Amino acid sequence: MSGVTAGASLLDLVNFDANGLVAAVAQQHDTGDVLMLAWMNRAALEETLATGRVCYYSRSRGKLWRKGETSGQVQHLKELRVDCDGDAVLALVDQTGVACHTGRRSCFYRAARDGGVETILQVEADPESLYGSKG
Amino acid sequence: MSGVTAGASLLDLVNFDANGLVAAVAQQHDTGDVLMLAWMNRAALEETLATGRVCYYSRSRGKLWRKGETSGQVQHLKELRVDCDGDAVLALVDQTGVACHTGRRSCFYRAARDGGVETILQVEADPESLYGSKG
Repeated sequence: MSGVTAGASLLDLVNFDANGLVAAVAQQHDTGDVLMLAWMNRAALEETLATGRVCYYSRSRGKLWRKGETSGQVQHLKELRVDCDGDAVLALVDQTGVACHTGRRSCFYRAARDGGVETILQVEADPESLYGSKG
Repeated sequence: MSGVTAGASLLDLVNFDANGLVAAVAQQHDTGDVLMLAWMNRAALEETLATGRVCYYSRSRGKLWRKGETSGQVQHLKELRVDCDGDAVLALVDQTGVACHTGRRSCFYRAARDGGVETILQVEADPESLYGSKG
């Protein structure tokens, strides 16, 4: 245990991969629910730390993805942590509404149970209402 | 919410990347602590589900990594979940001892706080005692 290392930046501890990305896990700060896993590049990480709103990098769209910019389901940052080898970050967040585009609280809503797959989370928000025509 | 889909396998829902890997987050099942992020290939995932002991794929060593095989700090699987797009899995585990090779409970032991970086978890186990000469 040590105090704050002044002048050090968490950014300096991150080892971005060959694509300039780091894996980012979002966890609801009070319940402990793991909500999702996505990716950040340096700009996304800087913006997240600067604004307190979680910003990812969308690999499919090839650009910054300000979580909730379309759906309103934003993530307010409570704390950002980095792992021992710097190839993952953990964002403790306060999730507005649902994290998953399917309308479920968490993206991890399917579990291996009893020799099959069980859907363990209910849809809480209509994806159509979150994303409109993109449903 | 639905019941178990018989005959379906969680393995079939995983989209392994171009390197044959999927990101795997380990979370302590009762406290909710996020312990680590590592990678699994199909064989690691199959072994994890079959044995109930978490097995990863070590990218640095290029082979299966049965968590705790050297250190004794094994992870007993409580439940395995997959995310909406199949590119991450969440392992709810019971972690023996510490997850991190630094001897800390979680690999996410450094946080951005007060404009610097703070070490927020104590070393609970001497790495030397966990790994011997590999320290």
